[in-house]
Amino acid sequence: MQPSLYLNDLEIGQRWAGGPITLTEAEIIRFAEEFDPQPMHVDKEAAAAGRFGGLIASGWHVASRVMRDFVDTAPFGDTPMLGLKVDDLQWRTAVRPGDVLSITREVVDIAVSRSKPDRGVLTMRMTVTNQDGAVAMTFLNLIQMPVSAG
Amino acid sequence: MQPSLYLNDLEIGQRWAGGPITLTEAEIIRFAEEFDPQPMHVDKEAAAAGRFGGLIASGWHVASRVMRDFVDTAPFGDTPMLGLKVDDLQWRTAVRPGDVLSITREVVDIAVSRSKPDRGVLTMRMTVTNQDGAVAMTFLNLIQMPVSAG
Repeated sequence: MQPSLYLNDLEIGQRWAGGPITLTEAEIIRFAEEFDPQPMHVDKEAAAAGRFGGLIASGWHVASRVMRDFVDTAPFGDTPMLGLKVDDLQWRTAVRPGDVLSITREVVDIAVSRSKPDRGVLTMRMTVTNQDGAVAMTFLNLIQMPVSAG
Repeated sequence: MQPSLYLNDLEIGQRWAGGPITLTEAEIIRFAEEFDPQPMHVDKEAAAAGRFGGLIASGWHVASRVMRDFVDTAPFGDTPMLGLKVDDLQWRTAVRPGDVLSITREVVDIAVSRSKPDRGVLTMRMTVTNQDGAVAMTFLNLIQMPVSAG
């Protein structure tokens, strides 16, 4: 576990690396059969004939796997956090079986609450990049956290 | 399967209902063990002692299950669509085992491309409401789709 970090410990521009993450063909199909059963995610032959030329992961699968990496790497230790909002979530490049994805998490804003100055909102930009350097997914994550260990 | 609908067939304010969706305790734990293993999602006793007073679903689980409902209900039939972006994704009320969630999908914007007038972007507001009328999750979904069967 990383040491606990609070809003006062953070700086804009601070970054953490995550990953690598790889989704296997079996994982992609299994997730999509339950949550996103479109042919491009579950049917190899239909996917090969479709616009992506092969099976691709559901965007919600990639997002969920990135959440898992955040829990595993725990950049803020055990500081209590509450996810408030996700903005500008884009899937830019398809994720295929075996792709090796790396993650960058960067602090882009820190805002202490005026009405409740013991807490505030951390905004992080998450960027998921594949082995060719293409951005697969990106989003802003607004997280409520305490200003200090208090 | 619903009849295919294209951008020209749609109107701002048009709505579709989805659901009901229910997540069982076993489903919540299974998803979270793979994708979001925080105590509030995977550990009944820790969750009961925590700030939500019981097990709650991962927000990514709820979002994924709402995607499944969209595929199942297929409001636009088999019209080819490409998810471009999700904005303003908020988890407002915790989702607990057995909650009965209903979904409203409403057209909030339609924009035909100037450079490629055969296609455009549909913006829908997705609202997920629990059995008490509380909004559990809401987001904007920007989807590229053809203007007509053309």
